[in-house]
Amino acid sequence: MKNFDINEDPHRRYNPLINEWVLVSPHRSKRPWQGQNEAVSSDELAVYDPSCYLCPGNVRANGEVNPDYENAFVFENDFAALKQEELAFEESQNDTFFKSRPERGISKVVCFSPKHNLTLPEMPVEAIENIIHTWQKEYTDLGKVDYINHIQIFENKGSVMGCSNPHPHGQIWAQSSLPTEVEKTQNNLKAYFDKNKGNLLQDYLAEELKLNERIVIENDHFVALVPFWAIWPYETMIISKRHLTKITEFTNEEVPAFASILKQLTIKYDNLFETSFPYSSGIHQAPTDGEEHLEWQFHMHFYPPLLRSATVKKFMVGYEMMGESQRDITPEKSAQVLKEQSIVHYKSKI
Amino acid sequence: MKNFDINEDPHRRYNPLINEWVLVSPHRSKRPWQGQNEAVSSDELAVYDPSCYLCPGNVRANGEVNPDYENAFVFENDFAALKQEELAFEESQNDTFFKSRPERGISKVVCFSPKHNLTLPEMPVEAIENIIHTWQKEYTDLGKVDYINHIQIFENKGSVMGCSNPHPHGQIWAQSSLPTEVEKTQNNLKAYFDKNKGNLLQDYLAEELKLNERIVIENDHFVALVPFWAIWPYETMIISKRHLTKITEFTNEEVPAFASILKQLTIKYDNLFETSFPYSSGIHQAPTDGEEHLEWQFHMHFYPPLLRSATVKKFMVGYEMMGESQRDITPEKSAQVLKEQSIVHYKSKI
Ligand SMILES: O=P(O)(O)O[C@H]1O[C@H](CO)[C@@H](O)[C@H](O)[C@H]1O
Ligand SMILES: O=P(O)(O)O[C@H]1O[C@H](CO)[C@@H](O)[C@H](O)[C@H]1O
Repeated sequence: MKNFDINEDPHRRYNPLINEWVLVSPHRSKRPWQGQNEAVSSDELAVYDPSCYLCPGNVRANGEVNPDYENAFVFENDFAALKQEELAFEESQNDTFFKSRPERGISKVVCFSPKHNLTLPEMPVEAIENIIHTWQKEYTDLGKVDYINHIQIFENKGSVMGCSNPHPHGQIWAQSSLPTEVEKTQNNLKAYFDKNKGNLLQDYLAEELKLNERIVIENDHFVALVPFWAIWPYETMIISKRHLTKITEFTNEEVPAFASILKQLTIKYDNLFETSFPYSSGIHQAPTDGEEHLEWQFHMHFYPPLLRSATVKKFMVGYEMMGESQRDITPEKSAQVLKEQSIVHYKSKI
Repeated sequence: MKNFDINEDPHRRYNPLINEWVLVSPHRSKRPWQGQNEAVSSDELAVYDPSCYLCPGNVRANGEVNPDYENAFVFENDFAALKQEELAFEESQNDTFFKSRPERGISKVVCFSPKHNLTLPEMPVEAIENIIHTWQKEYTDLGKVDYINHIQIFENKGSVMGCSNPHPHGQIWAQSSLPTEVEKTQNNLKAYFDKNKGNLLQDYLAEELKLNERIVIENDHFVALVPFWAIWPYETMIISKRHLTKITEFTNEEVPAFASILKQLTIKYDNLFETSFPYSSGIHQAPTDGEEHLEWQFHMHFYPPLLRSATVKKFMVGYEMMGESQRDITPEKSAQVLKEQSIVHYKSKI
């Protein structure tokens, strides 16, 4: 009987953060693609777009005028998925099949730059530091609101990720409950912490640094790696080397180090297919429910959909929706490919 | 304080099948859309396409020639994500962070019709019955293979769902392990069964039939409804009225009744935006591990991405990936909209 080879043979990998598996089919990465191609916008964008509701000085949907902002700029989402209003609620009789709960929250938009055409990889490190300070301030302020227990900072980049405006921006959805994925993560971090008196992601990072097979970037304070259990072709995670439960614990050295790894990682992404690389990214950190949450470890996920080129993405569809996530290229191979990318942006070389 | 109104106010709903929540924001369904539009292929397809590897008589990637099939036709996937080979495997030392297992399986393609341009909603009921018989045969035959414990029958329809060929077809991925979503479902069905000595989905269906708020189609043997906890805008589920654990238990009356509800549901979908409606669908039923699995209930999921029109889909991105699934239109409203659609295909009226 042939011996199992993780680089060649179909297998499943276990994700201890959410207690789920992913199916890996390394041999399949060479199948021909005859499906949908994504549109690539090669339009050069202007620094200022008079029709953009995020540009400085322009009018938004609710009639408000954006200030002439120079750094990151935050406002409440005009089409918020959550509302601040407190509502009276009675539990229903049939809570087995028809269980619902009102949800309070605050949604904000964070413009990363006044420049309409400047994405993270092309920003100066200082401008990214300013975004980090903005995230810290929002985490602190929103965390003080009595009914806010979780703050989800995220970015949808690129039209293929449902982003409706190329102006560089992210969002923050703050709410009463722990969202499903966060609750799963917390449960697994907590179980590990209770059992091992240690932090799951810190212990994992130590092993990854020893193996050095999936590390994409390492600096003094942060590591960007392709998780062993990654589901998206070029999925990565940034973890702080020090045990930090939340973004507000960053030291004065950690802020620029995080800005730098964000810039380098997104440059590598852009360089991979010489395109403005689409992704959804998001920060997972301690809830703001007033507990200490030592089981938590600050980390940031990048879920990019592209698979083979600027126009061919991975579809998480039928089998993936009914069964489980599936990938072709191995995380080790992806990490190697990303590691080899330059940290000089391809556009700056033209 | 205002009373919570489930039709108007932000809330979360609980999915007892997988123990996860969905965020519902009914007030948000009116926000303007400025994002990506999907391409609609309005090309009239030919009955036979000489370049299609699924059409009768044509040559496939591996050099094999398709027979001149007249009904459903099944073959092994030339680019299978799973392989049949048994591999020798030793558990690793560090199974906490680097847990992997070889996975054996068989992937098949099921052509629904020899006609290149005929999708489910446009097929005669008898042709759909033939597909059902094919699924039954595959479930039986694959289930007999000693290392196959789970059989996932599914369809990806439309290029927006990663389908690379418009020729009507589905797939079957059969494997040793229970995929993540199936294992979650089984755990919840089992816990309910052990506690209540009843079947979760049968008990749920009884309540839904009483309430009659989310029923889209009902016939003598099956019901198509929008689950209370649906995440996709027009997600539906077909459940048999009788407690059936698997598709091979269908009676002679249930086969045509299932064919008929499949046809009517997909016609309603096509009529909704007058387009060939994309979706991923899949059947969840008892594993083939030799156990009785009375906790299981045969059901079929439809996960369609379209939200507002033939070109605007719902993006499950940043918040959804990091936090939890989110929807705007309520399941009750979606059910009503689908119920109102004609069961005569819009094309047959031209
Ligand atoms: O097998 P196909 O149709 O080539 O591929 C499609 O369905 C598969 C199963 O859902 C997915 O893994 C692929 O990402 C998708 O493109
Ligand atoms: O808020 P936006 O950018 O309009 O919308 C985008 O991000 C949201 C949060 O991930 C999603 O719910 C939407 O489906 C997506 O289109």
